[in-house]
Amino acid sequence: MSTEFPPVEPPSEAVLREAEARQAVLTKPLGSLGRLEEIGNWVAACQGTCPPRPFTRPRVVVFAGDHGVARHGVSAFPSEVTGQMVGNFLKGGAAVNVLAQVAGATVRVVDMAVDGDTPVGELKVRRSSGSIDREDALTREECEAAIAAGRQIADEEVDAGADLLVAGDMGIGNTTPSAVLIASLTGSEPVAVVGRGTGIDDQGWMRKTAAIRDALRRARLNISDPVALLASSSGADIAAMAGFLAQAAVRRTPVILDGVVVGAAAVVAEEMAPGAREWWVAGHQSAEPAHAIALAHLSLKPLLEFEMRLGEGSGAVAALPLVIAATKILAEMATFDSAGISGKD
Amino acid sequence: MSTEFPPVEPPSEAVLREAEARQAVLTKPLGSLGRLEEIGNWVAACQGTCPPRPFTRPRVVVFAGDHGVARHGVSAFPSEVTGQMVGNFLKGGAAVNVLAQVAGATVRVVDMAVDGDTPVGELKVRRSSGSIDREDALTREECEAAIAAGRQIADEEVDAGADLLVAGDMGIGNTTPSAVLIASLTGSEPVAVVGRGTGIDDQGWMRKTAAIRDALRRARLNISDPVALLASSSGADIAAMAGFLAQAAVRRTPVILDGVVVGAAAVVAEEMAPGAREWWVAGHQSAEPAHAIALAHLSLKPLLEFEMRLGEGSGAVAALPLVIAATKILAEMATFDSAGISGKD
Repeated sequence: MSTEFPPVEPPSEAVLREAEARQAVLTKPLGSLGRLEEIGNWVAACQGTCPPRPFTRPRVVVFAGDHGVARHGVSAFPSEVTGQMVGNFLKGGAAVNVLAQVAGATVRVVDMAVDGDTPVGELKVRRSSGSIDREDALTREECEAAIAAGRQIADEEVDAGADLLVAGDMGIGNTTPSAVLIASLTGSEPVAVVGRGTGIDDQGWMRKTAAIRDALRRARLNISDPVALLASSSGADIAAMAGFLAQAAVRRTPVILDGVVVGAAAVVAEEMAPGAREWWVAGHQSAEPAHAIALAHLSLKPLLEFEMRLGEGSGAVAALPLVIAATKILAEMATFDSAGISGKD
Repeated sequence: MSTEFPPVEPPSEAVLREAEARQAVLTKPLGSLGRLEEIGNWVAACQGTCPPRPFTRPRVVVFAGDHGVARHGVSAFPSEVTGQMVGNFLKGGAAVNVLAQVAGATVRVVDMAVDGDTPVGELKVRRSSGSIDREDALTREECEAAIAAGRQIADEEVDAGADLLVAGDMGIGNTTPSAVLIASLTGSEPVAVVGRGTGIDDQGWMRKTAAIRDALRRARLNISDPVALLASSSGADIAAMAGFLAQAAVRRTPVILDGVVVGAAAVVAEEMAPGAREWWVAGHQSAEPAHAIALAHLSLKPLLEFEMRLGEGSGAVAALPLVIAATKILAEMATFDSAGISGKD
C-alpha cells in the first residue's frame, strides 16, 4: 500500500444542517446541551445520516513500539516496560482496558517496534528505532512499511464493522519524538514542547530538552515531506498511527484522538491527508505541553481537561461515553411535538 | 423531620490515604490519570473502603416546581412547560432520561410545586411560589415541609440502595431564585449572576436583572438563617433539593452536582449542614454565570465545561460515566507486581 492518500472528503455538510435543525425540535432549549449538541451533530455528519446510529463497535488500537532515544535517559521508566505493558493490555489489566470496558469498546494491541518479542508482532517493522537526536528513527522503507501497516489496520477494523476508532500509544520514550514532530510542524521551540512524560526528574528534563533540541535540528530538514519527517523523527509505532488516522478519514470513520503521542501522529497525518482532522474529535488535553500546541494547530478543542498523561488511548476512551451520549441525545430524545410541549413564548 | 441537620462527618481520611497508596502501585505512572485518580480516591473515601465498590444504583431525582416570578417575564418559556416536562420525564423522552440510560442510572421525578396536577405529587408542598422580587416564595411552614421532603427522599433512595445520587431541577423561572440565592450568600452583584436561562432576549434580560435586584434586597435580610432564606427567595423545589443534598451527606452518600439551580441549593445546603460539600463533586460548569460563583464558593472544580445550561441533572449525568470510570480504574487495574512490570528507573 502506498503512502499517497486519496483526497479526504469532509463529513456531510447537508446532514450537519439536518442535525442542527433536529436539535431545535428536541425537548430542550436549542443550544442548552452545549458541546453535546455540537458532538452529536458532528457524528451525524460523519455517518451521513440523521438521526445518527448508535455506535455498535467502538474500537481502540494501541500501537506499541520502543524508541532508541530512551537509551539516553529521557524517560523515568526502562524500555523493557513497553513489552511488559503489551502483556498487560492482552491480559486486560491496563488503564485503557478498564476504561474501554466502561465505555463498551474493545481493545486491539499491535507491536510495531517493541524491542523484544510479543505475541502481536504480525505487522512489526523492526525492533525499536534509531535515536532521533543523532540518527534517523527509520529508513524510508521501514517508514513506508509502518504507514502502510497503519492503513491496513484501519481498513481491517472498518471492514470488521468498527464505526468509531481510537488510536492509543505505548512506548517508553515516545513523548520525545512526539514533541519533536509537533515542534517541527508548528514552528515551536524545544522548551515549549518538552514535558515530564511518565515523570522524569530535573536531570532527565535537561537531557530530554537537549535531545529534543538536537532532534529538532534534524527534523526541520524534512518538514515539507511528511514521510521523510516520520522516517527521521518518529518511530514505526507513530508512523503507523499517522497512517491509521489518515486512513480512518479516507474511510469516513470518526476518530477520538488521545494525548500528545497520538496528537503528534495526527499533526503529520493531516499533512499526508489534508482535511483528515474533520473526522477527528479531541478526547482530552493532556498535561504534556506539546499537546495543547498540537490541538491548536489542528483547530480541535478537547472534551476533557483532566491533566491526564498516560497515553494508551486512555484520555480518548475516557471521553468516549460523552460521544456516545451526544449521539444518543440526537437520536433518542423526544421532540416538542411528540411530547406535546409548548415552545418559546 | 426537622430542619436541623446532625453534624456531617467527612469522607474517611484513612481510606483516602489507602487509595492514594493504591494508585501508586497500579500499572501507570502515579498521577498520570490526573483527575480520574483524584475522583477514584474520593469515591473510595466516601465509601470508606479501598478498592471502592462499583456503583450498583446511581439514582437521579428531578425536583420539579414552578416559580411565581416567571409571571413577570423572566423566562423564554411559559410556566405550563414545567408540568409538560414532568410528563416527558415519566415517558423517558427528556435529555436526562437519555443520558441516564447511557450512564446506567435511573430517574425519579418529584413534583414539589408544579402549578398544575401531575402523577408524582405525593410530597407536593404547594402550587408554584410567591414572586420573590416582591413577596416570600414560601411560608416558613411550607419551606420546612419542602426541606423535610427532600430529606425524606434522600433517605428513601439511600435505604433502597442508591450508592450515588444526582439532583436535577425542572421549573420555568428557576434560574432567577438560583441567582438570588447564590448572590446573597456570596455577596455578588445582580449583574454578576444574571444569565440567559433557557434563552431570554435582551428585554427579558433587563426584566430578569431587575427582578434579581429586587429579590436580592429581600434575600439579604435572611442570609444568616438558611431556612428563612429558602422561604423568602427559593421555592419548594429548591428547598427540597437543599434538604436532599444535605441529607445525602448525612447519609455518607456521594453526590454529583448539576448546574446553577442545584448549585444554588448546594450553597444553601452547605450552610444548613457544614461540610456537606465534601460529599459532592461538580459534574460540570454551566453557561449560567452564577454557577461558576457557586462552585468557587464551594471550592468545587467541575469535571466538564461543555457550556450546558439545561438543568434536569443533565450535566451531572453526562459526567457520571467519568465517575464510574474513575472508580473502576482504582478497583480493577492490575498492579505492577501482579502484571510483572518494572518500576521507575
